[in-house]
Order: sequence, then structure tokens, then C-alpha cells
Amino acid sequence: MATKNAFYAQSGGVTAVINASACGLIEAAREHKDVIGTVYAGRNGIIGALQEELIDTSHASDAAIAALRHTPAGAFGSCRYKLKGLEENKAQYERLIEVFEAHNIGYFFYNGGGDSQDTAHKVSQLGEKMGYPITCIGIPKTVDNDLPITDCCPGFGSVAKYVAVSTREAGLDVASMAETSTKVFVLEVMGRHAGWIAAAAGLASEQAGDPPHIILLPEVPLDEQRFLAQVKECVQTYGYCVVVVSEGVRNQQGQFLSDLGCVDAFGHKQLGGVAQVIAQKVKDAHGYKYHYAIADYLQRSARHIASKTDVDQAYALGRAALKLALEGRNAVMPTIVRTSDEPYRWEIGVADLGDVANIERKLPAEYIRPDGMGITEACRRYLQPLIQGEDYPPYRNGLPEYVRLEGHMAAKKLAPFPMK
Amino acid sequence: MATKNAFYAQSGGVTAVINASACGLIEAAREHKDVIGTVYAGRNGIIGALQEELIDTSHASDAAIAALRHTPAGAFGSCRYKLKGLEENKAQYERLIEVFEAHNIGYFFYNGGGDSQDTAHKVSQLGEKMGYPITCIGIPKTVDNDLPITDCCPGFGSVAKYVAVSTREAGLDVASMAETSTKVFVLEVMGRHAGWIAAAAGLASEQAGDPPHIILLPEVPLDEQRFLAQVKECVQTYGYCVVVVSEGVRNQQGQFLSDLGCVDAFGHKQLGGVAQVIAQKVKDAHGYKYHYAIADYLQRSARHIASKTDVDQAYALGRAALKLALEGRNAVMPTIVRTSDEPYRWEIGVADLGDVANIERKLPAEYIRPDGMGITEACRRYLQPLIQGEDYPPYRNGLPEYVRLEGHMAAKKLAPFPMK
Repeated sequence: MATKNAFYAQSGGVTAVINASACGLIEAAREHKDVIGTVYAGRNGIIGALQEELIDTSHASDAAIAALRHTPAGAFGSCRYKLKGLEENKAQYERLIEVFEAHNIGYFFYNGGGDSQDTAHKVSQLGEKMGYPITCIGIPKTVDNDLPITDCCPGFGSVAKYVAVSTREAGLDVASMAETSTKVFVLEVMGRHAGWIAAAAGLASEQAGDPPHIILLPEVPLDEQRFLAQVKECVQTYGYCVVVVSEGVRNQQGQFLSDLGCVDAFGHKQLGGVAQVIAQKVKDAHGYKYHYAIADYLQRSARHIASKTDVDQAYALGRAALKLALEGRNAVMPTIVRTSDEPYRWEIGVADLGDVANIERKLPAEYIRPDGMGITEACRRYLQPLIQGEDYPPYRNGLPEYVRLEGHMAAKKLAPFPMK
Repeated sequence: MATKNAFYAQSGGVTAVINASACGLIEAAREHKDVIGTVYAGRNGIIGALQEELIDTSHASDAAIAALRHTPAGAFGSCRYKLKGLEENKAQYERLIEVFEAHNIGYFFYNGGGDSQDTAHKVSQLGEKMGYPITCIGIPKTVDNDLPITDCCPGFGSVAKYVAVSTREAGLDVASMAETSTKVFVLEVMGRHAGWIAAAAGLASEQAGDPPHIILLPEVPLDEQRFLAQVKECVQTYGYCVVVVSEGVRNQQGQFLSDLGCVDAFGHKQLGGVAQVIAQKVKDAHGYKYHYAIADYLQRSARHIASKTDVDQAYALGRAALKLALEGRNAVMPTIVRTSDEPYRWEIGVADLGDVANIERKLPAEYIRPDGMGITEACRRYLQPLIQGEDYPPYRNGLPEYVRLEGHMAAKKLAPFPMK
């Protein structure tokens, strides 16, 4: 088997554990230097390939690569950039081939969510459609947990843990102050189309009356009157109410609540957070004092409270991707297969990229409480193992010590490529 | 020395470590049962005393009391309720004496910030002014770090650590996506009048170019043009810009930016978070894509990432309060005295409540960067030790295992007291 180099890129929104997949992949590649030469990482994802901005990871020490396992966000830079179809923009694919040829690249690893697996799927056809043989493997990643086939997606377990922990902690805070202060607390979490992250907050509730009391999901159009009635009942029963809301919640007309923001002093429409919109509705209806938090990027970068299960799976999927490449598989993605809920057991499976790309897996109906504002036992059984275990990063001066790669760039061999 | 019972209450906004002070106090009291009989905790702070709602902590096991050390928020309930002066509302003080007499209470411990130390100071005068001898000790607590005399306030170190860690993590996230996505990220943190919490975010920056790039403090009126120019320069230099903003930032006219919110669809004025106001200003001026996070209660309840220094000090201050009481001191508060920056060393001191009450310590000028948008080395030297060390709570099912006291109430002996 002739030695070929590999290209690896991170794509889409980053997570607390995407670098753990990079770590797994690169460590595995270093064990097979007879087959895999240099691993080049695209600077800012696929854009790095198009612009021939290739980070030569062989300059990174083994210790630096190992530290990727506990470093959040995208160590090589990521991007939101979706390749068009082969027919629509052939020039892009010709450029990819040009870059791959120039750097002897025979393996393509793409670490991302649904859109990214679509890109990977297109690249996997370069051999068949354009005569450039390449082994293309997708590596799953998305906090949204919305890829099909795989039981769960790396990145999700850690944001789920962050959200469940934060809900429990803030819930205790509100409970202790409710007599004379805030009665309703709203936590806004990510999830534009799928409510997995908001659902995970439900794990914080272990006894009747525990927060969160209400979870608003993108899958369930908001019934404002029933929601407001439930807030009131909750405050009357427990003295306070904790609401966790997906950013993607919509009203009965299908509009995002976050789009129904307000206008500033100059009449500009402002897209407020949905938390603010929800909190204001409660205030208007019941007069309760409220507070709200918007976790935003804090939730998906919170490596300090990552799920060990999630880190282990992200790492394993990186290694598995390399193994699939060595086996000569093309157009596939390693997956997590759950073999047991309790005790939790999982193994690595394989999915065809064509079956993965562009399919969004939402919360199934049986995971949503009949009233639409909470989760079921079945949902809890699914989610519980994903937040198991802690995997603390090392600390220095009271702060997590995250690695910064020097980013040694491979020398360019080609003329610049005009980006559109 | 005749045995007397003790009253302990938590007051004002809770923190990640106020229960550690309760733990220290109660554990120390249990070592001196010949002097301190029962420790009663006020349900919801001083309100519990007025309403004779006393939690009998002797029913809590040693293990449950020990678990308070790692449990955030106020285990007995807190309140925002400030006693008026002795002359203004004598009935309240007569009621306190009535309750104290009925339950043989000779020690009063009040765990709170500036307002609360004012209350403690008033109660300490009951002996002199109303003939009811009581030993009254304040225990410092406030995330705002704005009490005078004590080098720092329990609760602050943990929120400082949370904010610095979160800034580092979200900063990595933004850096990795900035090429094609968010260029400006704004994190809103607490601090209505003093900028200590926002300043602590500055610890995340260890090399030139590290986030946070800009810190907006309540002590410095916002110079909008200079701020916007700096955002632009930062994006041009580093590709992105991370801004940490105190909720209490004001404009040149002294108005809170958060009060300059927008109006909703019905014309109601909405008090948006200051993060949103700042982000929108950046968008309007430069068109950069932005995201913002509002940490709100998440920051002050985040026991999962508490500073060990902070936990140790909170616990030690609880024990010290009991020791001062045993020594017969009245109208005092134990403090943290820093004896060395590096290596960091501290010991317990004592302050008179009359010197503590109602004084707010803001960030001194020498801690603020000359441009007003960052911190100095002196500030870093002060802050650094306060976030040192991790003190993780135990976990069960992937979540921190926080204790819930059963809250066994002492039998009421008196008629109800009408609250005003």
C-alpha cells in the first residue's frame, strides 16, 4: 500500500469535544505511518482545502496532540461553508483535486454535522465522477444531536451535561430566593430545529417539584395560554418556576418567538433572545419578577464540565474513522451503536454517508411529555448515559490549560483560488 | 457559661459557597455543645426570625451538614429584606427579642453582604439599646466583592473563576469560527455598581491577543466611539473580538445601558440585557455578526467550577464566626487578611460591623487599564489567587449531588407577626 497523506477538517459549529476526535484520528494515524503519511488539517475547515491553507500536524508534538483531547472548540478553525453539488460548481471540486494532488492526499476526513456530511458525501464521489481516487470518511459532530443512524452525536453529551448541571444549580438559587425575589427563571439553550439540548435539562429533575418545571421545545408549537397557566400553577405550588427554552421555539403560526423581538429607540427591529420574550410574557400575564440567562456559546464550549462518555466517544470515533480508511472504506461515517441502556454499553458502527447527509433527527413523540412541556421516562433513559462521568481538563493558575497548536502551515504549491 | 441557642440566617443574593460558611459555623458549634445549644436557621433569612420560622439544624446528620460545603445557593432560604432602623420600626426589633427569648437564643449570625451587615449591626445593638443581651456576628458573603476591610468576599472567587473559565472557553469557540461566522461575542456578567466580576474575566487573557479583548466596567462611563473603534481594531487584528460587560455599565449621562432597552410589539418598554444593547451597537456601527450570552444566575450558583480558595475561605469564616462568638465578641465580622500575594497566604482578621455596613468597595483606579477597557497587572495580582484550585462536588448519575436538608421546623411558641 503506497503512502498517501490525509486531509482532516472541522466543519460547522464547534463543540467541547470535536478536538477529541481530531486527537483520536491523528494519534491513530501516527501509529500507521507506513500507510498514512502526513495529516494535514484544513485551516478553517474546507476553506483551508480550497485555499491550500494546510496545517502540517506532523510539527505538533505527541503531547500537544494528546492535549487536544481536553481542549474545546476547533483547534484548526472551522467554517460554515457548504460545497454546492458537483454539477453546480465543478470548479470547486476541480480545485480540491488540484490541492489534493499537489499534496499527495488520498484520505479525506470531515468532522461535522448534517451539512458537513453532505459535503463529505460529495467529496467521496470524486473518484467515481471525476477520476480522482480518494477515501472519504465522515466523523460525526454536533451539539444538536440531530444526525440519523448514530445513537448520539459527539458534542451533545457535553452540552447536555452543562445544561442539566446549570439548570440544577440555578434552580437551587431561585428556590432559595423566591420568597422575596425572582419567582420565574428562564434559561435559553441552543436547538434551532431539534429540542435535544432543552430536553437534557430535564435530567436535572429527579424528584417531583425539582426544576426544570417546564421545557419548551421546537417540536411543540407554544400554546401560550396553557404555558402561562402552568407557570402560575407551578409558582403557587412550589413558590417558583424554572423554564428551559430552546432558541427554536415557535408560536402556533410557525414563527420563531425570537423573531418577534422588539424595536430599539431608532425603530430597528431587534432579534431578542427567546428567553426575554418568554420572560416578558410571564411578567405581563402574572407580574412575577423574572430573571433569564442565555447560555449561548458558553454551553457548547464548556469543556470544563464535559461528559466523560462524550469525550470517550468523540475520541473513539476519530480513531474509528482512521481504521475505516485503512480498511479502504469510502463514503462512510463511524457511528455510536447503543447495545444496552443500563448498564450503558456502546460500540462503533458504520453508516453510509448517503444515508446520513441532510437528514435531521428531531425528538420523537414518545420522548415528549403528553402536555408538550417536559420529557418522558423513555427520553430520560435515552439521555441519562450520555452525561455520565466527568473528564476534567488540567488546570494552571486556576484556569483550564487548553492547548494552542502553533499551526505550522505547509508550503503552498499552487496559485490562489478565488473564493465566492 | 450557660448554654444558649444560636440563630443563623442567609441574606441577600446567594452564592456557590454561602452554604460552606453555614457548614463551618454549624460544625464548629457542634464541637461546643456545652456553650452553643441548638443552631436554628432562619427560613428565608431574617424573615424566618420575624415569623418564628426556625429550622432546627440539630435534626440534620453530620453528613448532611458536611455536604453543605459543596452545595450552592441558600440551603435555608435567603431573602432581600432590610430591617429599618431601631427608631423607625421598633416593633420589628421587639419581635426579634420576643422570638429570641422564646427560643433561648443568645447568638445571632448573619451571613450576607453590605445591607445584611447593616442589619447585623442593628441587631448587635439590642443589648445596649433594648436590654436584650445578644452576641451578634456578621459573616461576609457577596459575589460582588464590594465589602470593605476584608481582602475579598466569599462567593466572589467562585464567580470569578466561572467567568474567567467561560470567557476562555467561549473565546476559543469564537476564534475558531470567526472566519465565516460570529466576529463579536459579548458576555454579560453581574455587577451593578462594582466591576470586580467583569474584571475577573481578564484573568483568561495570558498572552497578547487572548480574549477578553475589552472589559466594560460600571466604574467607567462608556465612551461609545472609543469602544466601537477598539472593537473594529480588534477584529482587524485578531479576526474577532470578545467583550465582557458588567450589567451595571452606564453611558456618559449616567444612565444604565440596560435601561435603554427597546419596546415590544405593544409599545411596552423592555429592559433588555446590556449585552444585547452593546452587541446591537457593534452591529449598527460595523455590521459584524454577533452573539451574546447572559450568565445571570448560572454564574453565582456554579458550584461545579467553584474556586477551592473561595470554598476554603467561606468555610473558615463560618468557623471563625463561631469562635468570635465563643470569645464573647459582639458587633464584629471575621475577615480575610491577605499576608502574601505569591505564594498566596491569608489569615482570618476581625472588623467592626459599624465599619463594614453600607460601604461599597469599587474597583480602584489602579486596577483599571488607562483606556478604561481592561485590567492592570496590579488587578491581576490581586485576583489571581482568588480563583486558585478546584473543589469538585461529588457526582451521581452524571450530575452534582447537592444536599437537600429536610428543614425540620422548631415548634412555634408565639402568635404570628404581621409582615409589612
